[in-house]
Amino acid sequence: MEEIVRKVVARVASELSASGRLEAAGPAVGHQTKISSASVCKPAAAGGYRHGVPVGVSNRHVHLSDADLKKLFGPAYRLESYRGLSQPGEFASTAFVDIQNGDRKIERLRILGPVRKKTQVELSATDGRLLKLDLPVRTSGNTAGTPGIRMTGPSGSIELTEGCIIASRHLHLTEDDAARLGVKTNQQVSVRLSGAKSAVINEVDCRISNNYKFELHIDTDDANANLVSTGDIAEIII
Amino acid sequence: MEEIVRKVVARVASELSASGRLEAAGPAVGHQTKISSASVCKPAAAGGYRHGVPVGVSNRHVHLSDADLKKLFGPAYRLESYRGLSQPGEFASTAFVDIQNGDRKIERLRILGPVRKKTQVELSATDGRLLKLDLPVRTSGNTAGTPGIRMTGPSGSIELTEGCIIASRHLHLTEDDAARLGVKTNQQVSVRLSGAKSAVINEVDCRISNNYKFELHIDTDDANANLVSTGDIAEIII
Repeated sequence: MEEIVRKVVARVASELSASGRLEAAGPAVGHQTKISSASVCKPAAAGGYRHGVPVGVSNRHVHLSDADLKKLFGPAYRLESYRGLSQPGEFASTAFVDIQNGDRKIERLRILGPVRKKTQVELSATDGRLLKLDLPVRTSGNTAGTPGIRMTGPSGSIELTEGCIIASRHLHLTEDDAARLGVKTNQQVSVRLSGAKSAVINEVDCRISNNYKFELHIDTDDANANLVSTGDIAEIII
Repeated sequence: MEEIVRKVVARVASELSASGRLEAAGPAVGHQTKISSASVCKPAAAGGYRHGVPVGVSNRHVHLSDADLKKLFGPAYRLESYRGLSQPGEFASTAFVDIQNGDRKIERLRILGPVRKKTQVELSATDGRLLKLDLPVRTSGNTAGTPGIRMTGPSGSIELTEGCIIASRHLHLTEDDAARLGVKTNQQVSVRLSGAKSAVINEVDCRISNNYKFELHIDTDDANANLVSTGDIAEIII
């Protein structure tokens, strides 16, 4: 009996390894394989499934409240679309602001539209070092207690008391996508980024709404560290 | 018999999960646990071992050949140590150069000493975007066919025909460290970086010499993407 059990254990371990389910924890292979389609959905051992998802890299940007937009651009100003973003209704506007912390400054941060309830500045850790700000990782909208910054537009300046964050890595999913992957709102998953410097990144929040388009959103630090670009296909690991 | 096998399979899968061996591929937990000691060496299931290693973050820098040093700083110039680096004999010098590609420029890149056989510029992908250079990931010293750049020092300028790279992620190990971990020169391993944005990074080259000090070297993009700093403890996954 012991012999049989030992054989089964050895086989299961071997199958788990061969499936690639352990690959992130094993020796790296240095390949540059991309998954060929966003619809890939391969069964893996131990109940795991792998799902391709298009990457969207978010450069630093600002969301403004209507009140702050008026202070920075004047009372009659309306955001105009420069181009639409992948998430329906969202757009990169034609407008920019400068931000400043003491003597450290970043110029021409693009404002994304439409306006939101609260003003929020989404930066990378690299930006945080430049600005001498210790930025926390936060879900969009959750800005209580985060660092503020001075913001300047063509018609005025404001002193934000909070709002500067590193946006958490996240997936946008429709309810159908979520059902297909078996994930729930706020669940965290891991995602494999394949390239010459590959990685499995963790703490990727699942955000689910039928207004969304299926996409992985990461910041420029994650993109540059792992050499991936918008439109590449990453692999969700459930 | 089927019943017994099924139970064993379930137990092995559960043990593999509990060991954390599958953690990179499983749901992330968002913790900020650091390994408390660089000497950690825990057995894991499926034959794996985990080893803590101190992180060293490499900012962009330059290594100069003696001939290029003379052209940039004058024939009598000798590099002076600003401070010693963790690898024995290596030092950050007191000297800087500027580099320029077309209209894109990075000023005050620090020169590391001592001089080397070939001049080499180690940059991040973020730097590459700024300079409009498509940088390859290379092992230090392997610069054939890489992009060149204009370099300016206090006594002159040179046009490098090659030498700009993203240094590959790497581990410095003594022969004893390598024996303890069971790795060979040029073997690639994976390393877990723990923090608010954690990841398992792959393609980490093992470099072995008794002149080395045990350390993981990553660039500022990897450090900023995963929120780790010099002196943090990462975890080698063999």
